[in-house]
Amino acid sequence: MIEVYKHTPLYRFLLFCNESGLERTVLDCGAGGDSPALGLFASYGYAPTGIEFDPAQLELSGSYAQAKGMDLNILQGDMRQLSFADGSFSFVYSYNSVFHMRKQEVITSIQEMKRVLKPGGLLFANFLTVNDFRCGEGVDLGEHQYEQFDDDLPVIHSYYRADEPDVMFKDMEVLYKEDRVLERLYNGERIRQGFVDYIAKK
Amino acid sequence: MIEVYKHTPLYRFLLFCNESGLERTVLDCGAGGDSPALGLFASYGYAPTGIEFDPAQLELSGSYAQAKGMDLNILQGDMRQLSFADGSFSFVYSYNSVFHMRKQEVITSIQEMKRVLKPGGLLFANFLTVNDFRCGEGVDLGEHQYEQFDDDLPVIHSYYRADEPDVMFKDMEVLYKEDRVLERLYNGERIRQGFVDYIAKK
Repeated sequence: MIEVYKHTPLYRFLLFCNESGLERTVLDCGAGGDSPALGLFASYGYAPTGIEFDPAQLELSGSYAQAKGMDLNILQGDMRQLSFADGSFSFVYSYNSVFHMRKQEVITSIQEMKRVLKPGGLLFANFLTVNDFRCGEGVDLGEHQYEQFDDDLPVIHSYYRADEPDVMFKDMEVLYKEDRVLERLYNGERIRQGFVDYIAKK
Repeated sequence: MIEVYKHTPLYRFLLFCNESGLERTVLDCGAGGDSPALGLFASYGYAPTGIEFDPAQLELSGSYAQAKGMDLNILQGDMRQLSFADGSFSFVYSYNSVFHMRKQEVITSIQEMKRVLKPGGLLFANFLTVNDFRCGEGVDLGEHQYEQFDDDLPVIHSYYRADEPDVMFKDMEVLYKEDRVLERLYNGERIRQGFVDYIAKK
């Protein structure tokens, strides 16, 4: 039985991918971690490729793949400079990942994702919004960019107004956009998170 | 291979249900239609029960179940008056359905869902919000309730402010809440829809 993955919005992306009828090749940018979403795509017959910048996250996804007997093909890489030819993949996504950089680098990364996407291919990306409870926390780098800490490690978080990422998709057809504010329990506390998700066609 | 269902937020509910460790019995209120979400739960080993008010929708779900060789156990019924004993199910949900009534009837229906839920069981329900593009259309029945038409058939739609349904869950623990505004293409037009989703524990 296929595992239920926690990356809920990617089920909608998977549905769009299935319905497109394109060859099932997919790239995940920021693919590491202990429950890699590429496992979902691999389970549905997609040829997976992933890149991950952080060696610790790469190791976690490697352990997951080994335990599940899956080859997820996740490599060390940098989404600001992808090592793939133009038009290499039918589908490219970055889930809960691209906003861990400054906004200028986010623009570069989205450009790279579009470059390696086939014409007619589909892109999913999501962004933190200014509705998030952590927006404003940490060292202010301007334009809602903050230096914060995750698990005692310094990290950049860039937050967006809900329409702010639109400009990055102006050369694509936006098929789906969702601006969402969620409240959930995290370590016993109720937290509020804000995301805006895009599905766009090249 | 398990079908990918279009009811994306129910994948999150399924994850909560799986993690609860409770007996896998589930009730869908408003279970009919051509792609019944109970198929998702049945695929993951849940004993399904559904009720559906509209005979046409009941027929569609029946045809689906027959084509897939599934027994989804969807019966004619009214969520304002459920024909099940108190505490009958570990999980109860109503997806994109309960708001097709006046707000007083919605309160009655949510009360009924809570009644048939086991103590410790989980409830999912979602509501249209005032952010929806159709809020304001049709005959105004007051309090953001409107008589509108779907496929030339008259229907009530009740719209809520994002915090307005909170009161219906005040005797439960809200584990997850998501207020979302989405834009998608529908018959070639870009439409904006608004929903607020709750997952709550009895």
